[in-house]
Amino acid sequence: MKIGGNVIDNSENLHRFLQDFTALSGKKILVHGGGKIATELGTSLGVEAKMVEGRRITDIETLRVVTMVYAGLINKNMVAQLQSKACNAIGLTGADGNIITAVKRPVKTIDYGFVGDLDEASVSSETLTSLLEAGLVPVLCAITHDGDGQLLNTNADTIASAVAVAMSAVYDTRLVYCFEKKGVLRDVEDESSLVPEIKAGDFEGLKEQGVVSGGMIPKLHNAFEAIKNGVKMVYIGKADELPQVNTNDFGTRLIS
Amino acid sequence: MKIGGNVIDNSENLHRFLQDFTALSGKKILVHGGGKIATELGTSLGVEAKMVEGRRITDIETLRVVTMVYAGLINKNMVAQLQSKACNAIGLTGADGNIITAVKRPVKTIDYGFVGDLDEASVSSETLTSLLEAGLVPVLCAITHDGDGQLLNTNADTIASAVAVAMSAVYDTRLVYCFEKKGVLRDVEDESSLVPEIKAGDFEGLKEQGVVSGGMIPKLHNAFEAIKNGVKMVYIGKADELPQVNTNDFGTRLIS
Repeated sequence: MKIGGNVIDNSENLHRFLQDFTALSGKKILVHGGGKIATELGTSLGVEAKMVEGRRITDIETLRVVTMVYAGLINKNMVAQLQSKACNAIGLTGADGNIITAVKRPVKTIDYGFVGDLDEASVSSETLTSLLEAGLVPVLCAITHDGDGQLLNTNADTIASAVAVAMSAVYDTRLVYCFEKKGVLRDVEDESSLVPEIKAGDFEGLKEQGVVSGGMIPKLHNAFEAIKNGVKMVYIGKADELPQVNTNDFGTRLIS
Repeated sequence: MKIGGNVIDNSENLHRFLQDFTALSGKKILVHGGGKIATELGTSLGVEAKMVEGRRITDIETLRVVTMVYAGLINKNMVAQLQSKACNAIGLTGADGNIITAVKRPVKTIDYGFVGDLDEASVSSETLTSLLEAGLVPVLCAITHDGDGQLLNTNADTIASAVAVAMSAVYDTRLVYCFEKKGVLRDVEDESSLVPEIKAGDFEGLKEQGVVSGGMIPKLHNAFEAIKNGVKMVYIGKADELPQVNTNDFGTRLIS
């Protein structure tokens, strides 16, 4: 399950989310992004957020900031809160237990700095399986490593998808993306226009009709890639409706 | 094994230490303190380090700083470096896997703020045993939690000792403290005056003779407490002589 800044930045939302997450049955892994806190800390330290085409440029100072905020402040506070709800969370980066090895993004026109890209061999299911079998609930932040001692800032959506694919070799796996909307909407302004289910074969048609557009296109593309690679089902929905995952009635379901 | 700021603050020392630590045989757990980086970050953010009788006062802003630095920056960089040396490290706080539950220090004359004290029930060996049996090497920073969602700043020496005692119920356990001297010295200015071994029964006499004095007294007191509670042996020595642990010839050995 992946949550983003819209859940993390609001302590009330986060509290409710962690409560609902704890109540979900089955083995589970949480992946979280960053949110505003990293940008705010960077500003306080005189490290300006540098964005190119919606992506953060991670110079060495920015890497320090995101490592402190994602792996330290956010991850550990989330783990402590989950523990208080009797969810036996364990907070990790991709370096811990060598869970995720990324490759520093090659410089083409843009030098993204210390950003990690994943491939099909990036996630090792071994440590995660040991932890899950020991009754632990891994909480992964969006930091990976290159195997040579370098931490790398890595997109949390991509981590969630790669982890789900890797775990699908061991378990029946569902991938859940929580974001700010109820799911895929026919009319982005109208939450009652939810598309409850999309089959892989219908994706192209929905793009042509304009039902899926903008930032939703890469999201769904990645989701269907995960399904092609072994994940049983992907949900995209709103964090505050999370209990509906248990009844398979959460947001938009993506299936093969 | 516990290391402090003198190892962490110098990248060359740290590199050599992590190399030597990786080469040590047997199951192992690393506990690390903070060092100067937390104080420096605090200063950059306008959070002044507040010390009373050599102890850091941890207000909520300081807790944020130490959580970011200890659990984020230091811990995760150390894990990434260990991974590059093929040591399968996993970096944790006491909140992760509910490893260490502390009690917020009661306010008497001084309010230490968000500082955690440990008792004999604080460390649960369960998660650590699962991790060790899975071939992982836990790297613990000096942050614990109270079980109610609150992170707490906790003395790393105390964590090392409490963890060693808890693990001694499961394994034959040795506790190693690395610090800036070769060990207990008869003359603190003369590194050749090392006391190679101290028996529990000789501790009082050495205090009276002045061989053990100052900050070494609580260190040895805690060490002998650990031995009384099940730890087989405690070493106190210099990080750069670490390989000698394998031949039982490291620093000062404390035995029952």
